[in-house]
Amino acid sequence: MGVLESVLEQIGVLDEGAMAAAHARQARLTKPPGSLGRLEEIAVKVCGIQGRAHPEVEESAIFVMAGDHGVVAQGVTAYPQAVTAQMIANFAAGGAAINVLARCVGARVVIVDMGVAGESIRCGNVVCRKVAAGTQDLSRGAAMSREQARQAVETGIEVFQAEMGKGLDLAGAGDMGIGNTTAAAAITAVFTGRTAAEVAGRGTGLDDAGLGRKIAVLERALTVNRPDGRDALDVLAKVGGFEIGGLAGVMLAAAANRVPVLIDGAISGAAALVAAALSPRAKAFMIAGHLSTEPGHRAALAHLGVEPLLDLRMRLGEGTGAALAMGLVVAAVRVLNEMATFEEAGVSEAAEG
Amino acid sequence: MGVLESVLEQIGVLDEGAMAAAHARQARLTKPPGSLGRLEEIAVKVCGIQGRAHPEVEESAIFVMAGDHGVVAQGVTAYPQAVTAQMIANFAAGGAAINVLARCVGARVVIVDMGVAGESIRCGNVVCRKVAAGTQDLSRGAAMSREQARQAVETGIEVFQAEMGKGLDLAGAGDMGIGNTTAAAAITAVFTGRTAAEVAGRGTGLDDAGLGRKIAVLERALTVNRPDGRDALDVLAKVGGFEIGGLAGVMLAAAANRVPVLIDGAISGAAALVAAALSPRAKAFMIAGHLSTEPGHRAALAHLGVEPLLDLRMRLGEGTGAALAMGLVVAAVRVLNEMATFEEAGVSEAAEG
Repeated sequence: MGVLESVLEQIGVLDEGAMAAAHARQARLTKPPGSLGRLEEIAVKVCGIQGRAHPEVEESAIFVMAGDHGVVAQGVTAYPQAVTAQMIANFAAGGAAINVLARCVGARVVIVDMGVAGESIRCGNVVCRKVAAGTQDLSRGAAMSREQARQAVETGIEVFQAEMGKGLDLAGAGDMGIGNTTAAAAITAVFTGRTAAEVAGRGTGLDDAGLGRKIAVLERALTVNRPDGRDALDVLAKVGGFEIGGLAGVMLAAAANRVPVLIDGAISGAAALVAAALSPRAKAFMIAGHLSTEPGHRAALAHLGVEPLLDLRMRLGEGTGAALAMGLVVAAVRVLNEMATFEEAGVSEAAEG
Repeated sequence: MGVLESVLEQIGVLDEGAMAAAHARQARLTKPPGSLGRLEEIAVKVCGIQGRAHPEVEESAIFVMAGDHGVVAQGVTAYPQAVTAQMIANFAAGGAAINVLARCVGARVVIVDMGVAGESIRCGNVVCRKVAAGTQDLSRGAAMSREQARQAVETGIEVFQAEMGKGLDLAGAGDMGIGNTTAAAAITAVFTGRTAAEVAGRGTGLDDAGLGRKIAVLERALTVNRPDGRDALDVLAKVGGFEIGGLAGVMLAAAANRVPVLIDGAISGAAALVAAALSPRAKAFMIAGHLSTEPGHRAALAHLGVEPLLDLRMRLGEGTGAALAMGLVVAAVRVLNEMATFEEAGVSEAAEG
């Protein structure tokens, strides 16, 4: 059995017993029942994922996976391709937004070169797992071979499993890749049945003409490739990216290891669609960190059946929305674990309302 | 000049120079301009409030002010009045939701007895500044005298100023008081021009009959008292509460001291309306932490012209929404302060899109 099949087989379901115990405890804590809203719901979900009524959220990591995209040749981005590698160096030095936000929530940043163009990046803290030096232009044919698509997903699984050994209670997905909102939009269109125009956004800052070009490129990509929505590896191979495949692998491995995983924006949303297509059970282990302003993201989250925790009109990627939301998940769990009960605090309970 | 007048005179305006410098720096940081959405906007606002382009958010405090309400005699609450004092003991012991959430963001909790029924609470970490042992029943006459209303606001100012001496870069408002959603709804109705039915909510958990009673009580309170919306102390005296007056004082003192202050839910929203009526300039120093499910809260925030950072269907009060949002404000400021610029990181900038 391959790495992928083995992980798919390990993915279970939420632990109903742990969730019932957590729900019962929520009702004993010194607050009106349900008054912490989604914070209560998220804590119960984490219990179901981790399979225990007192979850742990000590060790957390954001997986920032990077890859380049041949489709940049079509003029669908505001920034030059070199920025992908430059930003990896910025991540490695701790100067990017994701570094700051991960520090805010005490998460480590795992930087992975999944397929950046040019030479491999040799920094001590960059995990080099390059599948190839960037994808092919998805508007003119498949972005990668089916074998490369599988390799990308399996690499994500392996990177996640290596991090499990260091302690990992909570994970977040992040991305870097100039051109990757085009690939993410194509994947989202295939799985949600939306049109190119419905899922295409301005990415890092396209003007109207750029957005029009991007929609035309997306339409061409879908026509040329005819990705099969019932075959996740086909979709990933034809219109995906190496970092998107890697993040799908991270999400599958998180589910298999019962680690809650936070979806970030449009790119990790597309990765979540790939992961969910490979294993519908994996959806239960995902938490939507935020709603991106990229139009396809809302459709992706709705398709996954997850509701974003934050809506701050962000569209940066890198895992920034996942990291911010991680603070909320940790808070939700700490409330469940640390609050006093009515009995412990000697507080009277509600009379008939 | 009184304590109140002196603070009102100190309240200035946002520092446009600091905001312009912060805005310019946002554009130099290694991210597409505007891609961090409201995080960028909040950081710029904090610069305007603090009057510096590199704001500090090291020291933060949540002011949890407590008071009791004579209107509980009308059967408008799900919990008995004794819970106010019991919860103060819970705050003092560190077992309540606000304690956990304040620990998550590294904020201290300042617990203030502004007017709890019964004996004064003698705990080392409870600030005893009782105006009276609970308000009168606002459905049968004024909740307090005009002198007491002023005293409540001035007490809030003094409590805030005492905390300034310990270091205070960021403040949050929180409340405890069985019955106080009724007072908050009445205040909100007066200042926003909404009807009792539009602003009344289920508080800690009223059923339909309880909500109907509460609306009738609110209508009676507004008819009996005829609070004058152009006179903030009149409104506070007739349909307010001691903790609401105290929180209005905290917000005015925060504005005077150029400290950003986070509004929590329905009660601190009503306090913000009182503060804004005393000084329209104070609004610029407020940040809305979250949107409560109490119906009047949305109207209050709209009236203040502030947009909530979070919407997690919470309705607990205590400052819980303010504390969670504090984590986002700190993150926003750290992004501004700690991210590398394009020049520093050697990252290429956007071409024409």
